Amino acid sequence: MQKANLANLQCPIAQSLERVGEWWNILILREAFYGSSRFDEFQKELGIAPNMLTKRLNDLVLKGILDRIQYCEKPPRYEYKLTKVGEDFRPVLLAFLNWGNKHFAADGIAVKLIDRETGKTSRPILIDSVTGKPISAKSHAIVSGPAANEELRKKLKRD
Amino acid sequence: MQKANLANLQCPIAQSLERVGEWWNILILREAFYGSSRFDEFQKELGIAPNMLTKRLNDLVLKGILDRIQYCEKPPRYEYKLTKVGEDFRPVLLAFLNWGNKHFAADGIAVKLIDRETGKTSRPILIDSVTGKPISAKSHAIVSGPAANEELRKKLKRD
Repeated sequence: MQKANLANLQCPIAQSLERVGEWWNILILREAFYGSSRFDEFQKELGIAPNMLTKRLNDLVLKGILDRIQYCEKPPRYEYKLTKVGEDFRPVLLAFLNWGNKHFAADGIAVKLIDRETGKTSRPILIDSVTGKPISAKSHAIVSGPAANEELRKKLKRD
Repeated sequence: MQKANLANLQCPIAQSLERVGEWWNILILREAFYGSSRFDEFQKELGIAPNMLTKRLNDLVLKGILDRIQYCEKPPRYEYKLTKVGEDFRPVLLAFLNWGNKHFAADGIAVKLIDRETGKTSRPILIDSVTGKPISAKSHAIVSGPAANEELRKKLKRD
């Protein structure tokens, strides 16, 4: 991410974006969810330059989103597994998947989410698990929380 | 986004990322959801350079995510409103918000989602609206759809 003012830095959306840093990180996480764990798998799937991939994987390990696990001693070889934080990125990817399928799949559906038990295509929606209500702009609002600074508080009051 | 192979381009996650293009676009959309619509509002909230903001807003209009609407003739002034496609980006932002609040809010919650009626904090979760089941890695899988090319089909078979 480039420069951002204080209100942005406190915002959890900005905090999250800072963790995934750039598209490559999101695409690496996508591949991790699709089953890649080894350097050469990520490289093959993404067609990313090795030095860039090394940098991105180190960055994701540093941020606690991937774990690096040695699976071979001689020569030393590592695989990369999603941590709990990484696993929790799944809803973001699924939200991107939905948005893409809904609006940018003019040539048909290339990737979809299915129910493993029935094999049927899922239609994921966000609900409020407190009330069971679907989340919409009408029923739900984004507001400042107890830790918000003055600037963020003012920004979110406008809604 | 930088280079990507064919399988990536067909993937709806890559398609979506291509539409939002870079962090600035996501942050501009965030501001639109927070209530900004005028150039100077976006500029003030994001601290973004005017030429960069112009470029990003034009890009989002071109991609059908924002609408540009003239609200003053002399001098010509425009505001930027979320289109239907833009509105449908909300679950992505909410997923980022959740992820940030869950893992990166060490100093407390600065932004939260509430139920407008009760004022209570929401806990958004993804469910499959076909069955009502919560979506998890155990119960749901990402698989190739009818329009997937050979490369994508092979990639997604590994799961």
